[in-house]
Amino acid sequence: MNLPLSPSPGCVYIVGAGPGDPGLLTLKGAQLLSGADVVLYDDLVDRRILDLAPSECELLDVGHRGGSGVGRSQETLNEQLIRCAREGKRVVRLKGGDPYVFGRGSEEAMAMCRAEVPFEVVCGVSAAAGVPAYAGIPLTHRNISAAAVIITGHEDPSEPSAAVDWKQLARLPFTLVIFMGSRQLPKIVGLLLAYGRSAETPAAAIEYGTWPRQRTV
Amino acid sequence: MNLPLSPSPGCVYIVGAGPGDPGLLTLKGAQLLSGADVVLYDDLVDRRILDLAPSECELLDVGHRGGSGVGRSQETLNEQLIRCAREGKRVVRLKGGDPYVFGRGSEEAMAMCRAEVPFEVVCGVSAAAGVPAYAGIPLTHRNISAAAVIITGHEDPSEPSAAVDWKQLARLPFTLVIFMGSRQLPKIVGLLLAYGRSAETPAAAIEYGTWPRQRTV
Repeated sequence: MNLPLSPSPGCVYIVGAGPGDPGLLTLKGAQLLSGADVVLYDDLVDRRILDLAPSECELLDVGHRGGSGVGRSQETLNEQLIRCAREGKRVVRLKGGDPYVFGRGSEEAMAMCRAEVPFEVVCGVSAAAGVPAYAGIPLTHRNISAAAVIITGHEDPSEPSAAVDWKQLARLPFTLVIFMGSRQLPKIVGLLLAYGRSAETPAAAIEYGTWPRQRTV
Repeated sequence: MNLPLSPSPGCVYIVGAGPGDPGLLTLKGAQLLSGADVVLYDDLVDRRILDLAPSECELLDVGHRGGSGVGRSQETLNEQLIRCAREGKRVVRLKGGDPYVFGRGSEEAMAMCRAEVPFEVVCGVSAAAGVPAYAGIPLTHRNISAAAVIITGHEDPSEPSAAVDWKQLARLPFTLVIFMGSRQLPKIVGLLLAYGRSAETPAAAIEYGTWPRQRTV
């Protein structure tokens, strides 16, 4: 396919790498990588995806893991993206999953906007659908689930500042997709049951989704 | 990237083509297409994606449009997939968006399962995130929306059989992504407002998302 997608100098491409399996990278993402001068990538991006960048390309591990806030601060990273773009480089910011689904891609996009750095967001396969699919689970199915809720599970639900109301969610007859929920899993499950979800609700816990070491319980 | 992804004879690959822009097809999808004997594709799949199939490959338009039920019946299509696989062909079933997000891919997967035809589901970029992204809208943003609800808007909410409870949804402080909602839009908006959503809630209606003729209101 002939897609006119070589990256422009001085522009930042915020690219979703997909949930893990390198085959889930998009053609557009692959083409942008192959013309990049510098790639700033999340921890969890597969090495084979980085190999698509030219050999002279600078590869910087910026240590993010999903939206968990581990690694360097978002502000430092934004400044680095802006600096690279102002040096006239072709910049690819390679993020796990999809940049706009718990990827904090919108924070990076807004920082580029404020700095008047041209940028483009390139969607990726979100872990929200990709990970359940590799476990054989559709998000929706006619007459069973008419909707899916994609939600963050990383906050402690017993904190008063928690943004997620598990009481409301327990009552929705939809598929719940909980991101980064392993640490809070016992509390989340306890709340869902306490607020009326049936203990018979089918459920799966998945780690390293779409990676060869994926584990589903 | 060297991915060992040539399709196997007698196997059905249910592949998500992404929301429209051919650059959003995955590498895995592209490699499977390039080795296919027959491709059964949805109406809305871009011609440039079909061009990835070999020249001798059989291309069959099966007329589906999202989950709307337009086109031939799902049963006829399932039988056709099974027949092609039993003839020993390498079969790609190319669907818009992601097969497991309102794609009815799970119905096709279950039919293959029942017929004991080997199959694999290959995720695609869902319109759920892809289309809003092309309009500059993230599904989640720290401190603004901690979750997104992906929901079908094609059923008439005034029908007693309607599966979606707009009253519940109106009260959730999350991003709502409504698929195929154009026909029912006035009723849906009316219900959301009646059940307490603020009239100040930012909203966008998008058609032909990620296509060059995308229109956002």
